Amino acid sequence: MSKISKIVYGILILLLVFKPHFSAHLSFLPKPYEDSIVTVVILGILYLIYFLNKREIEKREIEKINLACKIIDLDAKLSDSFTYIGQVNLKLPLLKNLTTDLLIKNKSTIKEKKEVFNNLLSTAVSSIAQVDWGMLRFIETDTGRTLKEYDFTVKDYILLKTQISNKDLVEATKDWDKKLKKIKNINFVTSSDSNFNIRCYLIFPEVKIEENNLEILQVIVDQSQLFYRYLY
Amino acid sequence: MSKISKIVYGILILLLVFKPHFSAHLSFLPKPYEDSIVTVVILGILYLIYFLNKREIEKREIEKINLACKIIDLDAKLSDSFTYIGQVNLKLPLLKNLTTDLLIKNKSTIKEKKEVFNNLLSTAVSSIAQVDWGMLRFIETDTGRTLKEYDFTVKDYILLKTQISNKDLVEATKDWDKKLKKIKNINFVTSSDSNFNIRCYLIFPEVKIEENNLEILQVIVDQSQLFYRYLY
Repeated sequence: MSKISKIVYGILILLLVFKPHFSAHLSFLPKPYEDSIVTVVILGILYLIYFLNKREIEKREIEKINLACKIIDLDAKLSDSFTYIGQVNLKLPLLKNLTTDLLIKNKSTIKEKKEVFNNLLSTAVSSIAQVDWGMLRFIETDTGRTLKEYDFTVKDYILLKTQISNKDLVEATKDWDKKLKKIKNINFVTSSDSNFNIRCYLIFPEVKIEENNLEILQVIVDQSQLFYRYLY
Repeated sequence: MSKISKIVYGILILLLVFKPHFSAHLSFLPKPYEDSIVTVVILGILYLIYFLNKREIEKREIEKINLACKIIDLDAKLSDSFTYIGQVNLKLPLLKNLTTDLLIKNKSTIKEKKEVFNNLLSTAVSSIAQVDWGMLRFIETDTGRTLKEYDFTVKDYILLKTQISNKDLVEATKDWDKKLKKIKNINFVTSSDSNFNIRCYLIFPEVKIEENNLEILQVIVDQSQLFYRYLY
């Protein structure tokens, strides 16, 4: 309760207690007039009390609304940062998944070597690009010969051989500039090393890829390129 | 303002306005007694108004405190998530830094090849382990011969040749189990592929390494291993 409210209460109490003294000074007025004046003064002060209390409550209501708005704002920020953390937490393990987890495995048999590329490809296709199928093709750029090819399909999807030719792929990446290339309705990403005579191509159906996911696809293709050289 | 407060105000106003009528019914009492009764009743109702207003303001104050506590709680959560995002944002670019950014560079001359390993080593030493110096040593495990060695020192730190021998390193990692090994006051991490006859060792001074940073050091050593095979 504010100081001013307390003062007004005090004045009203004093007025009521000392009313007989005021009455003595107002004795020249007839009794009904005197009573009316006292009633009007008390009503006026009561209105003042009512007004002050209303203002104090309104002040607190406004403060409450401001706090509630701040909570809504913080909630939104927290929700945004949790969404971001969720996305990031999916990507963080990739650092280990695409390197250590593959290097630690036995890679002596053909099947074990194939497993490395299947792992890289399935991550690219199902987790990052989120498409139905994908291929990793290693091409000798001088001759246009396919050295290795690995494919991956989601569920029971039957992969028909793509019509995309090695010549088209090599030609399209001669002047390597942007990362996501397109021929007809096929997307592809190629390894970053444009000087090495073997290049890896990740081929998948046309789909919109966000910039940061494209960066990860590029990392997967580059890891495939490194592992190819490491294993063959 | 609550309904009950408004009713109490109404009763007080009615009492004041209709006071002359009550006085008529109390005419058997002497005037001073009558005035005192009216004053006591008005004071009682005033106290009731004071009490109700105080309660309403206190109710809002408690609601404000609850909201303020919620804000403190949300602020703390937001601060925690920003700290986490800060840590993660330092690690996220590593995925690209340790693969694409290195593969895209020219790597034809000896100097350019050395640059790749200097990049990997400086990330490990200054950003992750946060120590004064570090070495990447490639050892042929059959013969114990050093094939390549790269060193990195922070600022003007002069690196004295470490006393750690290849024999000790190879011996310590024969039964490859845990990632961080120690010989005397030297830490080292070795590449995950225990079957390949060339192994990479990251050697640095003894320091406490957190589990997730150790994972990143492991990734850096494994990338060095892949790049060694790719470039030599």
